[in-house]
Amino acid sequence: MADTAALDTPTDINSNAAKTVAQALNGILADSFTLYLKTKNFHWHVSGPHFRDYHLMLDEQAGAILATTDVIAERVRKTGNTTLRSIGDIARHQTIKDNDAEFVSAEDMLKELRDDNLKLVEKLREAKDIADEAKDYGSSAEIDGWIDGAEERAWFLFETARKG
Amino acid sequence: MADTAALDTPTDINSNAAKTVAQALNGILADSFTLYLKTKNFHWHVSGPHFRDYHLMLDEQAGAILATTDVIAERVRKTGNTTLRSIGDIARHQTIKDNDAEFVSAEDMLKELRDDNLKLVEKLREAKDIADEAKDYGSSAEIDGWIDGAEERAWFLFETARKG
Amino acid sequence: MADTAALDTPTDINSNAAKTVAQALNGILADSFTLYLKTKNFHWHVSGPHFRDYHLMLDEQAGAILATTDVIAERVRKTGNTTLRSIGDIARHQTIKDNDAEFVSAEDMLKELRDDNLKLVEKLREAKDIADEAKDYGSSAEIDGWIDGAEERAWFLFETARKG
Amino acid sequence: MADTAALDTPTDINSNAAKTVAQALNGILADSFTLYLKTKNFHWHVSGPHFRDYHLMLDEQAGAILATTDVIAERVRKTGNTTLRSIGDIARHQTIKDNDAEFVSAEDMLKELRDDNLKLVEKLREAKDIADEAKDYGSSAEIDGWIDGAEERAWFLFETARKG
Amino acid sequence: MADTAALDTPTDINSNAAKTVAQALNGILADSFTLYLKTKNFHWHVSGPHFRDYHLMLDEQAGAILATTDVIAERVRKTGNTTLRSIGDIARHQTIKDNDAEFVSAEDMLKELRDDNLKLVEKLREAKDIADEAKDYGSSAEIDGWIDGAEERAWFLFETARKG
Amino acid sequence: MADTAALDTPTDINSNAAKTVAQALNGILADSFTLYLKTKNFHWHVSGPHFRDYHLMLDEQAGAILATTDVIAERVRKTGNTTLRSIGDIARHQTIKDNDAEFVSAEDMLKELRDDNLKLVEKLREAKDIADEAKDYGSSAEIDGWIDGAEERAWFLFETARKG
Amino acid sequence: MADTAALDTPTDINSNAAKTVAQALNGILADSFTLYLKTKNFHWHVSGPHFRDYHLMLDEQAGAILATTDVIAERVRKTGNTTLRSIGDIARHQTIKDNDAEFVSAEDMLKELRDDNLKLVEKLREAKDIADEAKDYGSSAEIDGWIDGAEERAWFLFETARKG
Amino acid sequence: MADTAALDTPTDINSNAAKTVAQALNGILADSFTLYLKTKNFHWHVSGPHFRDYHLMLDEQAGAILATTDVIAERVRKTGNTTLRSIGDIARHQTIKDNDAEFVSAEDMLKELRDDNLKLVEKLREAKDIADEAKDYGSSAEIDGWIDGAEERAWFLFETARKG
Amino acid sequence: MADTAALDTPTDINSNAAKTVAQALNGILADSFTLYLKTKNFHWHVSGPHFRDYHLMLDEQAGAILATTDVIAERVRKTGNTTLRSIGDIARHQTIKDNDAEFVSAEDMLKELRDDNLKLVEKLREAKDIADEAKDYGSSAEIDGWIDGAEERAWFLFETARKG
Amino acid sequence: MADTAALDTPTDINSNAAKTVAQALNGILADSFTLYLKTKNFHWHVSGPHFRDYHLMLDEQAGAILATTDVIAERVRKTGNTTLRSIGDIARHQTIKDNDAEFVSAEDMLKELRDDNLKLVEKLREAKDIADEAKDYGSSAEIDGWIDGAEERAWFLFETARKG
Amino acid sequence: MADTAALDTPTDINSNAAKTVAQALNGILADSFTLYLKTKNFHWHVSGPHFRDYHLMLDEQAGAILATTDVIAERVRKTGNTTLRSIGDIARHQTIKDNDAEFVSAEDMLKELRDDNLKLVEKLREAKDIADEAKDYGSSAEIDGWIDGAEERAWFLFETARKG
Amino acid sequence: MADTAALDTPTDINSNAAKTVAQALNGILADSFTLYLKTKNFHWHVSGPHFRDYHLMLDEQAGAILATTDVIAERVRKTGNTTLRSIGDIARHQTIKDNDAEFVSAEDMLKELRDDNLKLVEKLREAKDIADEAKDYGSSAEIDGWIDGAEERAWFLFETARKG
Ligand SMILES: [Fe+3]
Ligand SMILES: [Fe+3]
Ligand SMILES: [Fe+3]
Ligand SMILES: [Fe+3]
Ligand SMILES: [Fe+3]
Ligand SMILES: [Fe+3]
Ligand SMILES: [Fe+3]
Ligand SMILES: [Fe+3]
Ligand SMILES: [Fe+3]
Ligand SMILES: [Fe+3]
Ligand SMILES: [Fe+3]
Ligand SMILES: [Fe+3]
Ligand SMILES: [Zn+2]
Ligand SMILES: [Zn+2]
Ligand SMILES: [Zn+2]
Ligand SMILES: [Zn+2]
Ligand SMILES: [Zn+2]
Ligand SMILES: [Zn+2]
Ligand SMILES: [Zn+2]
Ligand SMILES: [Zn+2]
Ligand SMILES: [Zn+2]
Ligand SMILES: [Zn+2]
Ligand SMILES: [Zn+2]
Ligand SMILES: [Zn+2]
Repeated sequence: MADTAALDTPTDINSNAAKTVAQALNGILADSFTLYLKTKNFHWHVSGPHFRDYHLMLDEQAGAILATTDVIAERVRKTGNTTLRSIGDIARHQTIKDNDAEFVSAEDMLKELRDDNLKLVEKLREAKDIADEAKDYGSSAEIDGWIDGAEERAWFLFETARKG
Repeated sequence: MADTAALDTPTDINSNAAKTVAQALNGILADSFTLYLKTKNFHWHVSGPHFRDYHLMLDEQAGAILATTDVIAERVRKTGNTTLRSIGDIARHQTIKDNDAEFVSAEDMLKELRDDNLKLVEKLREAKDIADEAKDYGSSAEIDGWIDGAEERAWFLFETARKG
Repeated sequence: MADTAALDTPTDINSNAAKTVAQALNGILADSFTLYLKTKNFHWHVSGPHFRDYHLMLDEQAGAILATTDVIAERVRKTGNTTLRSIGDIARHQTIKDNDAEFVSAEDMLKELRDDNLKLVEKLREAKDIADEAKDYGSSAEIDGWIDGAEERAWFLFETARKG
Repeated sequence: MADTAALDTPTDINSNAAKTVAQALNGILADSFTLYLKTKNFHWHVSGPHFRDYHLMLDEQAGAILATTDVIAERVRKTGNTTLRSIGDIARHQTIKDNDAEFVSAEDMLKELRDDNLKLVEKLREAKDIADEAKDYGSSAEIDGWIDGAEERAWFLFETARKG
Repeated sequence: MADTAALDTPTDINSNAAKTVAQALNGILADSFTLYLKTKNFHWHVSGPHFRDYHLMLDEQAGAILATTDVIAERVRKTGNTTLRSIGDIARHQTIKDNDAEFVSAEDMLKELRDDNLKLVEKLREAKDIADEAKDYGSSAEIDGWIDGAEERAWFLFETARKG
Repeated sequence: MADTAALDTPTDINSNAAKTVAQALNGILADSFTLYLKTKNFHWHVSGPHFRDYHLMLDEQAGAILATTDVIAERVRKTGNTTLRSIGDIARHQTIKDNDAEFVSAEDMLKELRDDNLKLVEKLREAKDIADEAKDYGSSAEIDGWIDGAEERAWFLFETARKG
Repeated sequence: MADTAALDTPTDINSNAAKTVAQALNGILADSFTLYLKTKNFHWHVSGPHFRDYHLMLDEQAGAILATTDVIAERVRKTGNTTLRSIGDIARHQTIKDNDAEFVSAEDMLKELRDDNLKLVEKLREAKDIADEAKDYGSSAEIDGWIDGAEERAWFLFETARKG
Repeated sequence: MADTAALDTPTDINSNAAKTVAQALNGILADSFTLYLKTKNFHWHVSGPHFRDYHLMLDEQAGAILATTDVIAERVRKTGNTTLRSIGDIARHQTIKDNDAEFVSAEDMLKELRDDNLKLVEKLREAKDIADEAKDYGSSAEIDGWIDGAEERAWFLFETARKG
Repeated sequence: MADTAALDTPTDINSNAAKTVAQALNGILADSFTLYLKTKNFHWHVSGPHFRDYHLMLDEQAGAILATTDVIAERVRKTGNTTLRSIGDIARHQTIKDNDAEFVSAEDMLKELRDDNLKLVEKLREAKDIADEAKDYGSSAEIDGWIDGAEERAWFLFETARKG
Repeated sequence: MADTAALDTPTDINSNAAKTVAQALNGILADSFTLYLKTKNFHWHVSGPHFRDYHLMLDEQAGAILATTDVIAERVRKTGNTTLRSIGDIARHQTIKDNDAEFVSAEDMLKELRDDNLKLVEKLREAKDIADEAKDYGSSAEIDGWIDGAEERAWFLFETARKG
Repeated sequence: MADTAALDTPTDINSNAAKTVAQALNGILADSFTLYLKTKNFHWHVSGPHFRDYHLMLDEQAGAILATTDVIAERVRKTGNTTLRSIGDIARHQTIKDNDAEFVSAEDMLKELRDDNLKLVEKLREAKDIADEAKDYGSSAEIDGWIDGAEERAWFLFETARKG
Repeated sequence: MADTAALDTPTDINSNAAKTVAQALNGILADSFTLYLKTKNFHWHVSGPHFRDYHLMLDEQAGAILATTDVIAERVRKTGNTTLRSIGDIARHQTIKDNDAEFVSAEDMLKELRDDNLKLVEKLREAKDIADEAKDYGSSAEIDGWIDGAEERAWFLFETARKG
């Protein structure tokens, strides 16, 4: 994802600062696609008496995550940098782990996603500071909503994973 | 994606036949996510006088591809098998190639996607025959629409990539 | 439901073949109304901590079943035959059993409906072959969607009835 | 449909009174499903120069009848009783007769449904008095609308069946 | 909430009778706001494996309660009296108890709301008789729907709080 | 509006009782059309600093009145009687007075409509008792909503016509 | 409907010319309300095998007529004149005749309305010329659409009243 | 409509097979435009007591036919062939006959369209077999729906043209 | 399209004048269907880097043309004449030429349609004068909008066909 | 705004006549933008007890004015001329005066806008005659609606500015 | 509202900092419910010539305030703390005063709400700083919108309460 | 735009600070209207093979700019200052230049707008800092979105203006 002259979009943001924001956003984009896939994985393979309830909740959460991805990628483009390009590109940048287990209990699904979303919150909070530093206010304001969304998912998952 | 007793959904389709359909569909699912990402990649990085027109066309095509993924995965689940689970799982099953080049001309984008979609048509036509063989009529009928969609994308990309 | 001259709709399908399709579809129609009523029965009488979740799921499934009934009946009419006429007519043709028990546990509800839907899938798959035999492509294509719907209901019911 | 301890919903309505309302409503529910089926029967088998007009009118009327059934059943449940459970249960409680004739003229269809709807109005008016007696105001108010609906259907059918 | 000359709306209902209806409705309004807050309290603090299902059910129930409040208050105004004015006014008129406990189990939440809604049904049934006595038919008809709503909430809560 | 054999709709309501309800409803229909026209008259000719506010309020009120007229007329028809037929028929049955003055002040408009609506409430309350007497529950329940509507219009007009 | 200083709206149209347009439009308004009522009369009292078809057609036509009335009245007001004020005002200006007959056959209803609508077309065509003369282009353009509407109603009524 | 190198869309379907499908589809397209025009012709010129009912039915049928035309043409284009180009092109390929008679009775209109639609069903059934032969699954699946539509039109027309 | 007694709709427009308008409108109708088909032809066969942009523009323009056809035909019918009946009828009346060429460049498509639309504008302007002459204001007003539409299409096509 | 060869759109309207219409329309466009800004100015700065009522009315009026601007400009372009290009261009062509006063009373706002709208009506009526002269029927018909809109605004403003 | 181990939602925000934000938000929540009730109080009891205008404005403002409450409460929950539980809890935390006066003039209503909203703005601005301090960006961004909303209400109320 | 006592809206923001924000926002408002007009200018006068694509893009961009103007102006008003009043006021405050050239090539249009939007981004980023300084959080948050919008427009324009 190095910057290439051919793709520069002009911007009045300092170009080094913009590149740092881009790096942070591209990392978040990789994790968002990873978390989207994992949430869909669990949406497809969940089982047990809460099947429909969790199947729907995971679909809603996957949808909410996916809805952020185009915005993230285009924030990077609008500020003069390039973004992710492929499944392989995601794999090289993701910090959230895949879970390819044959069987995961519903409870373990909830807990793993809760932790992944909290990890995403942390990365978003760091990116927020980087964006503010760069005076990249357009990105900074979007991040606020992404944090709220990830905190909401973590709350739902945390409460659901608890003993009643 | 081997079949696991714990996740078997009961079906009256012969279980070996169903597994063969599942293998075909899971391969198509991996390619669909790959093609989705590549189409978004080009949606984000396209440049030149047709920018808006191609940017919109690629977004529409990416949206059409993504819309098939949940249906593909759930056809596999409804017929007693398991489906993809992660970015890594996609990477291991994809046959369509990533394109991580720093710069791709608009014309090359159109041609590469045209070829990828035609390749997808071929795989879908094979999966159709496998599904019919297994009397998996639910999957077979869905495949018809996915073929039409991929052929439409190939037509648009082919005509657009031609010299006027 | 014997064919009566007074109600013949003209069709180019061989009339014996059409009558065979009609017999298969009328049997499926009787079972669909029976399953609709049983699913509503359980929607009304379900109880326990998953009440709302199952109450909603059963309403969605009942709605999906009912939505097929007018289409089934009119496929029979469009191909020159007559269809069901009354509650008694349904009773005489149904193969899915009524359940008039005073109390059924939520878990038993799910399992019974799962089995009924799988039985319906089998009958639909047989009807599909009959329709293809008769070159009644209009009916054949509709059956594909009904199979997918019944398989989806069976999947939801199967996963929900499992131990978490 | 006897009351069973296991399914009691608590209510402050006197339980004998509530049971009497439930019996009236369950009878109306059986007749409503019967009338729905007969109206669809005629919607499917009507013939002659007014085909489309009557086909549509009967579909609208069937839809209006069906729309009352879930409300009827749930009024019974909300006031501590149980409701119908199956096609057989409907058959045992219906007072409106099935019509399984091979051929019914359009005019006879209109007249038979007119009489059935007027009979339903009578039963609804009796149930209204029973509900008011039991201070079951929730049911009583719903009955008002069902009476208006049945009177509207009877009016349409009566006027249409008359000599112009 | 004493009547004040300055705010009289003219009405042909006997003014003492109207005032009695107003007193009943204002009491119900206070309890409705109290129950709304308690239902939102539980919507916010519920926990355990049914979190999403109950969180949604409680939100729907709170929404249904809130939707009655403006209608209640304006029925009082339309018939020449004054209604509630503040949080303190609610506190002085409420008969449903607050629950300020640090922790309430999901099961206890359901049971407490079930009892509160049944209590509300009783008050509504009394208000219905008062409104009918006063020939305040506009209020009387609205109460019918509020009773049905509270009975529906009680039914959902009762069934959900039962052992499966 | 005498009853004519040629137009009788069958009904199980006692025919004398039904005719008495019809007479009451036809009178209310005449007054409703009269009040509709007067409200539109004022909507068209109102003037002064509150022009837009009153112009809109009067249009909303006229719309609410008009919305009741088809329902009133069809309640009469559904219960076996005939209803109004012309402008002249309205003129012969109206009890609310026309106002053909060249100029009416905004304040006088509000006061006159307030009194007309209160008069309509009185007539509706009488018709309610007649309908209940006749066990014409369909009409009785509709009247409840018409009373609420007229009381709401009277409240708005009363408050607006007061000194601030 | 004489012009009154107190209600003059300023306009650059010659005031005599505007008054002539107003007289024409007010006459059309009276006839439009008359025709609306007659069309509703027939909508309510029509009978015979085409009941639903004609009942719907007459409701659509009545709705189309009513939709023009507010526009007519406000064109008069916008060009500095006053418009109709009451049922009595309509009665004094209408040229289309009331029909208060106890019984009108469906065929006679169609023919009478056909003639009334054609008469309305004539008056509209005259008003068009008066408006053009006065350079009242706003009114003139609206009249075009009203003519088309009345011609459409006349066409439907003419064709329907013909022997098949 | 011969194949021209300049317009080839790439496809993996055998090109001779694809051309055979294209010929069948182009013939159906010509007949669909012809039937569309004839159905509109009758929609415009129908007369008699069922005018509105048939006028509407014919408009719905014409709309349903037209809705297939763009899909037919684009199936031909997506599979590497060219489609119809003009009114003259339609005239040269149509097998359904024009009807330019000055007057056609309503009954004759219904019968002629019934026969035309049944003829279309036959051609569609043949095209289906050709498409399946060519493994042109996208076209084959679309044809299923077109058959159902034409059978539905034939049913409506057949029943309506019968003696009541 | 000669006038036939059997199909006369009564109108107060002079019948010779109406016939002249009808002849003009029927000619425009033939050209509109011709232009619709040609625009669809180009929508289907266009090629080159602007494929999607032109494909969409041509579809929008074809849709706009088609939307006028039913209105044109029904204006003729409402004023007592008959209109087009078939593909052959269109062919006999069209003045816009078919283009059946195997290949047309995108630029030539734009230029040909630009000229055809300008030709249509001319014919519409002539028809306008004929309609005004006949005092056929309903047709005249519709023509205004059709002129605007054709001028808009010509503008788009003209600007697009120019060198940038 | 002189005509430039490079921007000519072909038209069959006489080019001098078209240019005269263009001049009139461009003047109206300048005044429309001016009036839009002034109406928004007053929407933003209005004060006093009618604040919300006038704030909303002025927003609706500003919205109605703005909605005409694109249509005006494109009428000029469709008939072969050029239109306004900038704020400065508006300033050079506007005849309606700016009002930059620090404070304007609500009453003065209403009166000034009333006069401005009446002035706009006058200019529109002149443009109408010019367009008719040029046989520019597309523009002429649009002007009708703009006149009606400006007359409606003037009526609202006039009545509101009057003493009650 | 002390923190309780049983209800902790995990968060990466420093827990003391989060608790401080929670305290600020809970105070704002109490004031928001208080202001909602007071605004509804005035919506119900307002009187005088601006009745409808103010009645609507107060309803819109009450709706806007209520819309923030669920978001406020859930921000507290998402960041690991507990929120308000009852009417009594609101009463204990509110700083905005109740107004239980028998009569409040419209002008006094506007002024009191203007001051209350400005007070709310102040508290929101303080909470913003606390949230920023805690790096609770999700809350901080929501507060921005709540400030804008309260400032808008204050502006409307201030301008309306002024002498015109 | 000096502050005038008569128009002060109360605010707790320091009044000097608020005035500084107002000055910045009013400058941005002037430039936004200027850019809106220029973008519409180019939307109207663009020419060449990308006509429709650019015509649509420029309309979308103009719409996005206009959508910000009312919000900008009202932020100024809500914080106690006055905003722009006229076309002349815009002209006096705009820093973006008008372009009144007779002919501008499509490519030059794109480049000029790209630069203008980037200039707007700079001014917005400065205003953001001013608003934050003044603790005017309502304005500050709105600016974030306006920056994102302008950056998106610049990106589209930049990429489109590049050599493919
Ligand atoms: Fe995007
Ligand atoms: Fe899914
Ligand atoms: Fe049906
Ligand atoms: Fe239900
Ligand atoms: Fe309210
Ligand atoms: Fe009606
Ligand atoms: Fe109006
Ligand atoms: Fe197409
Ligand atoms: Fe038509
Ligand atoms: Fe435009
Ligand atoms: Fe919530
Ligand atoms: Fe605004
Ligand atoms: Zn985008
Ligand atoms: Zn699913
Ligand atoms: Zn049907
Ligand atoms: Zn329910
Ligand atoms: Zn209200
Ligand atoms: Zn009706
Ligand atoms: Zn109006
Ligand atoms: Zn297409
Ligand atoms: Zn039509
Ligand atoms: Zn445009
Ligand atoms: Zn929530
Ligand atoms: Zn505003």
